[in-house]
Amino acid sequence: MKILKTITAAFLLSFTVANAQESLDFSGKKELVSPEVNGSNVTFRLKAPDAKSVKLVANWLPQKGWEPGTVDLQKNENGVWEISQTNLPPDLYTYSFLVDGVKVDDPNNVYLVRDIANVMNLVYIDGAKSGNYKVQNVPHGTVAKRWYPSKGMKTDRRITVYTPAGYEKSKEKLPVLYLLHGVGGDEEAWMTLGRASQILDNLIAQGKAKPMIVVMTNGHMSNAAAPGESAKGFYKPVMMTPDVFNADMETYFKEIIDFTESNYRVRKEVNSRAIAGLSMGGFHSLYISANYPNTFGYVGLFSPAVMPPQNAQSDIYKNLDQKLKNQLNNHYKLYWIGIGKDDFLYKNVADFKQKLDGMNFKYQYVESAGGHTWSNWRVYLNDFLPLLFK
Amino acid sequence: MKILKTITAAFLLSFTVANAQESLDFSGKKELVSPEVNGSNVTFRLKAPDAKSVKLVANWLPQKGWEPGTVDLQKNENGVWEISQTNLPPDLYTYSFLVDGVKVDDPNNVYLVRDIANVMNLVYIDGAKSGNYKVQNVPHGTVAKRWYPSKGMKTDRRITVYTPAGYEKSKEKLPVLYLLHGVGGDEEAWMTLGRASQILDNLIAQGKAKPMIVVMTNGHMSNAAAPGESAKGFYKPVMMTPDVFNADMETYFKEIIDFTESNYRVRKEVNSRAIAGLSMGGFHSLYISANYPNTFGYVGLFSPAVMPPQNAQSDIYKNLDQKLKNQLNNHYKLYWIGIGKDDFLYKNVADFKQKLDGMNFKYQYVESAGGHTWSNWRVYLNDFLPLLFK
Repeated sequence: MKILKTITAAFLLSFTVANAQESLDFSGKKELVSPEVNGSNVTFRLKAPDAKSVKLVANWLPQKGWEPGTVDLQKNENGVWEISQTNLPPDLYTYSFLVDGVKVDDPNNVYLVRDIANVMNLVYIDGAKSGNYKVQNVPHGTVAKRWYPSKGMKTDRRITVYTPAGYEKSKEKLPVLYLLHGVGGDEEAWMTLGRASQILDNLIAQGKAKPMIVVMTNGHMSNAAAPGESAKGFYKPVMMTPDVFNADMETYFKEIIDFTESNYRVRKEVNSRAIAGLSMGGFHSLYISANYPNTFGYVGLFSPAVMPPQNAQSDIYKNLDQKLKNQLNNHYKLYWIGIGKDDFLYKNVADFKQKLDGMNFKYQYVESAGGHTWSNWRVYLNDFLPLLFK
Repeated sequence: MKILKTITAAFLLSFTVANAQESLDFSGKKELVSPEVNGSNVTFRLKAPDAKSVKLVANWLPQKGWEPGTVDLQKNENGVWEISQTNLPPDLYTYSFLVDGVKVDDPNNVYLVRDIANVMNLVYIDGAKSGNYKVQNVPHGTVAKRWYPSKGMKTDRRITVYTPAGYEKSKEKLPVLYLLHGVGGDEEAWMTLGRASQILDNLIAQGKAKPMIVVMTNGHMSNAAAPGESAKGFYKPVMMTPDVFNADMETYFKEIIDFTESNYRVRKEVNSRAIAGLSMGGFHSLYISANYPNTFGYVGLFSPAVMPPQNAQSDIYKNLDQKLKNQLNNHYKLYWIGIGKDDFLYKNVADFKQKLDGMNFKYQYVESAGGHTWSNWRVYLNDFLPLLFK
């Protein structure tokens, strides 16, 4: 029959006439493996015969001030540069290469993550500490990108909503965690760098965390959505937007609660609401929970920025002591603070704790190794979730 | 007050002690702009003072066989390589650099997309033809990553589900389009390379397409989800999985319809169901619609692969003529075929059309310029959606 050529044959025949096709690699050519992970050891490789220098830039290497750490790769006779890193503790790491000074993502590793304006490769080291960061064979929740109307900001704004496995078919009302990102993030950060959906799926499957809805907001109120996802188009992201401390996030946060509670099957008691955030998101969680009296039964401050700027004028930032006293009198269930010993905000958090101690404000405090890092924030989330909604 | 240092001051002070912090760039240093888009002209720049050669690899440049087209950048006195491309027709394009033979994504452009094992930068040229590919100030639908149970594959599998703006609060039942990817894709491809959610949001807002639910499946049945999103972990994707023509997709497609119709508020008449796909997804759409008698009122084949391999044994691929006759007798509303003049599958589609003509099987046929490309598939989707559910 005329058309009984196989599609494979059609593919092969077409090589002679190919033009304007998506690149379809049928060559099966042997490619470099990078990263090659063996237990806690990883080998990185890059083919660059003409390069004079290839460095690995990686977040497990000691930083030099604010500059990321680097280490040189060695070139072999085939023009392939290589380096092995051994005994990496279980975690999800980021890296890239510097080839003669040019930043190069590993062309053999398609797993990339963006942090502000920097795109890096991911490499995962399995182990007890990182096991909840990987996708396991457990029931998976649904992750939705959704838009809520913000009257305050006069636009629809994007949120990420995690609903646990079985939510859609159940009739049970669920508690809600509002989970906030840092100054470099957006409504995608807890999913991409934070591995929140994997951590939630795994903790819930293990029976360690209660099934809950998690609403991940965008704390840069002048952005309707993450870079590239709003009508602003494909602009280059910057870390600081002008709105970071203008109290819009705190002022209009109720819109997000109202949207969640009128669009999802949720419990609406104080002790079924939690709010937590990292860095700037810790700042937001602190001031939102203090300004919304008797709204949140659980508060989590992960490496929090705790002070407003001196020129902040909003009432949101005023009379914090009195607001904290009200919060105390409302008998919250948990006020949780985590910070790394090397965090640049360590001293500020210590001062804030002293203030809390002075007013007998109860809190749980976790001091970890390390600094102001996603490595810590994933651990904090993994440790915080089992404490909620008990 | 002791803690009344501003957070900005804390950030600045911390420079002296910084270690183990996420990289936070407060330097405000002037960075290169790349790509710089001015109307239909784009300038690409890369700082690489030590490089001997920098090439632009881009999908608008003429291909050499299956190899993508390239053009040389020119180096200026500051070690910055630069090239301008003029009069690019409105579209969403992909590109990367080759620096002394090493594939380098543009470090000044955070917008990246993966196609199989290749990650490329995006650059968008605005215009009438591409306007629906950008996020506009219109109501936005919800995009959810969700898992359905597959008894056939003995695992949960991931789908992407688009529900139009207002779906959650409405009581109206909506029609459903099942939208299938090609051999290099997965359940994310129509969203990332295909800009399906933007096209849907915009066409619906313009009143040109009916509000509908769109279910985007993963046609590689041995993969539970896109690379990195299943328990297979962070493996390197390959184009061909062994399951491409083993009929699992067609055999178990009913599970996806059943899941959709029992989990979403949808119309269940034949003329409220559509199926469409590109390349391998066109093949799937052809055989699914032919094997599910009287299920789909609308069928779209975008640059379809139309023939099974000669060694395909499943009954799914047998007696196609008789199945098409049944389909014809069931009075479908639309059978739509689109292909580019330069597509390597052009001849196969011409043969298939001849078969359809021979049995008076009605179809709409669109022959476009170009080949087997996302540029065409976005246009086909944009043209096909307004024809549905009328």
